[in-house]
Amino acid sequence: MSSLVPSLPFSLVGQKLTGRSGILALMDDLGKALTLDPQMRMLGGGNPAAVPEMQTCIRERMAELLAEGSAFDRMIGNYDPPQGNPPFCAALAKLLRETFGWKIGPENVAITTGGQTAFFYLFNLLGGRHADGSFRKILLPLCPEYIGYADQGLDESLFVACKPQITWPEGEASRVFKYTVDFEAVSAALAKGNIAAIAVSRPTNPTGNVLTDAEVARLSQLATSAGIPLILDNAYGAPFPGVIFTDATPFWSPGTILTLSLSKLGLPGTRTAIVIGPPEIASAMGAMTAIAGLANGNIGQQLARPWVESGEILKFGPRWLCPFYRRKSDQALGWMRESCDRAGIDWAVHASEGAFFHWLWLRDLAIPTLELYERLKRLKVLVVPGEYFFFGLDPQDDAWPHRRQCLRLNFAQPEQVVREGLEIIAQEAARSRG
Amino acid sequence: MSSLVPSLPFSLVGQKLTGRSGILALMDDLGKALTLDPQMRMLGGGNPAAVPEMQTCIRERMAELLAEGSAFDRMIGNYDPPQGNPPFCAALAKLLRETFGWKIGPENVAITTGGQTAFFYLFNLLGGRHADGSFRKILLPLCPEYIGYADQGLDESLFVACKPQITWPEGEASRVFKYTVDFEAVSAALAKGNIAAIAVSRPTNPTGNVLTDAEVARLSQLATSAGIPLILDNAYGAPFPGVIFTDATPFWSPGTILTLSLSKLGLPGTRTAIVIGPPEIASAMGAMTAIAGLANGNIGQQLARPWVESGEILKFGPRWLCPFYRRKSDQALGWMRESCDRAGIDWAVHASEGAFFHWLWLRDLAIPTLELYERLKRLKVLVVPGEYFFFGLDPQDDAWPHRRQCLRLNFAQPEQVVREGLEIIAQEAARSRG
Repeated sequence: MSSLVPSLPFSLVGQKLTGRSGILALMDDLGKALTLDPQMRMLGGGNPAAVPEMQTCIRERMAELLAEGSAFDRMIGNYDPPQGNPPFCAALAKLLRETFGWKIGPENVAITTGGQTAFFYLFNLLGGRHADGSFRKILLPLCPEYIGYADQGLDESLFVACKPQITWPEGEASRVFKYTVDFEAVSAALAKGNIAAIAVSRPTNPTGNVLTDAEVARLSQLATSAGIPLILDNAYGAPFPGVIFTDATPFWSPGTILTLSLSKLGLPGTRTAIVIGPPEIASAMGAMTAIAGLANGNIGQQLARPWVESGEILKFGPRWLCPFYRRKSDQALGWMRESCDRAGIDWAVHASEGAFFHWLWLRDLAIPTLELYERLKRLKVLVVPGEYFFFGLDPQDDAWPHRRQCLRLNFAQPEQVVREGLEIIAQEAARSRG
Repeated sequence: MSSLVPSLPFSLVGQKLTGRSGILALMDDLGKALTLDPQMRMLGGGNPAAVPEMQTCIRERMAELLAEGSAFDRMIGNYDPPQGNPPFCAALAKLLRETFGWKIGPENVAITTGGQTAFFYLFNLLGGRHADGSFRKILLPLCPEYIGYADQGLDESLFVACKPQITWPEGEASRVFKYTVDFEAVSAALAKGNIAAIAVSRPTNPTGNVLTDAEVARLSQLATSAGIPLILDNAYGAPFPGVIFTDATPFWSPGTILTLSLSKLGLPGTRTAIVIGPPEIASAMGAMTAIAGLANGNIGQQLARPWVESGEILKFGPRWLCPFYRRKSDQALGWMRESCDRAGIDWAVHASEGAFFHWLWLRDLAIPTLELYERLKRLKVLVVPGEYFFFGLDPQDDAWPHRRQCLRLNFAQPEQVVREGLEIIAQEAARSRG
């Protein structure tokens, strides 16, 4: 049943935000497979796994709210202030202050409707056209970076990204590589004077790379010297949900904007993220929420509030989530090694230091991974093609073959799904060699 | 604990969205009073009342989801596609098709994170700067209009609003007035050729006015002739939640974009709204959700799904909500009459045809209602000053005294709160006469 009205003209912003974006393709594939196509092997999106202990914990907490009655009614039936639920924000500031010594209070905290929304607000608040006529950009010091940022600018060309250095910590024969920040490239980009903020995810989505404490400290220093904030996306990271397999210290400084999320704890359906930053940034988040969304959903905050008050939220990672995902990562890596070696392809994988993904590098692939993705989808395996994560690079890097040779694979789904998926990927990659 | 970084420069869009907006003041007041200041008499925001039958219904549904176990886990732990949960959207299209004969399928339906977000997307999708160099505006045919639209444009001056005609259906002595659409003014505005869409809330927030079927039909005709959509905001209206006290028929046409919400049914904490429109608009909503929010919260849709499948969602209004709010409206009107007459002020009130508000016109007020609002807040009565709702008017209407003489009062709060609030308002208005 189609429209009877003539095609409606969209504004410039409308055209920008309704183009066929990578994140739309990814979320559409993910959501449709989850709700409509149970046969699909879901190595695509970033859906958290069903971690039984977490599920029990969440169900018990909802049952407790229902038993309290009026607490449930208030959660469902009242609007919170746009900046977030005051007791929740106060409890979180207290926990972080007392645990890590960060000098923050509730005025440093804002809630947003998920991490994606936090970045939509932050990037367009700081980047883009300014009253002085300048156009300020967001610097991504380590590309590839999260697909969901790519199309968030209301204006074109919001991002400047730096190619990473590719290292082989245990030699190339190990087939395990690691990206590190090219600080010369970062300094050169900053020197142009048009950067509004440095932004980086830790662990990096898509690669599972975790910036070392030294890398974070150096980025923070560079940002401070340039008088701009460092935005750290901790959706999978520290201090919660804590899906990090290396020794990485949670980081905050007065010039840092830190984002956290309840999604990867197991609550994506509640859309709850947290921004910790200077008070002017936290209150800007509240102002933008009021205008663009009225208020946030209450449910994630009310489910999590006692865990924040007791500090238990910091224990879910070490106790359940980190061991769970680490086991999944190791297992998938074993299957990948078997399948890829058996298929006889030239492959490598990024060191698995956190998050839910393996970043598979198919070094003799003759087709773009965008094409491989289509072929795999027909074979009922959903992946995310790597091209989408390489945005903001200099046009001279278009020829860099690496950007068309990588796949992001979610290793957190059920064993059979991951194992079969990896085998099909390896076989199809073998058929697609140069 | 303040920031140690120098003040960060915000972009033009950032400055626009973080200015001190009416909707921020309103939601901040509302949320803080609800969570922090139980002494405040809440005649401010649009929080739905605690309707016991609805609350029981919602609690029972959550208990059912918990008892099913895996349904609860999926709701909390999975991402839906950005355009909304496919079974929910299909069930809603089917219900509206079969009940009202609207020619729609799931491709006409999109979910957003609350109605405020739907309008943020719709206004900026259709209005603003276009590739052909034009700047297209949103026409509000009946001003005053919803405070939450006022600051949603990414660019300045997104709105053009038409002054209403003020009528006295039962004579001026009744003290009950009603706004009607000035169609000459609407036609004149359309004739300028720079209008992207006509938008109107039904019932009108803030006044409780309900556009007649004839007014809606005429607006729809004008929009179709101009080749632009008519956007109808049914947050309080038909077919659900159905808080309408007149005979108003639910309206849709292929050129109409209809928004509905679960908030005023009693679920604001879930942030769930629905857009029914041409497929290109519904898919644009999904694309914008993917980029700006990744996905919607699932909880509202899962709570409401069986009510949509059974059609029960259409019965909550006539059975519980409409009688509840109508009784509240009548009661508050009686108290208002008593208090205002006793105080000896010259007052009038808009005909109460739907929604949760009385729109009180203080005809001999000597101060702006922005000032009266501050005085009342100190007396622990929270209202919304009328000035905020008069935006988009021609500068020549700045001198129109009416725009500084009205208050929006939520009549749905507990009896004692409303009664005391009205008495304090009348007394303070008496002290603030010219």
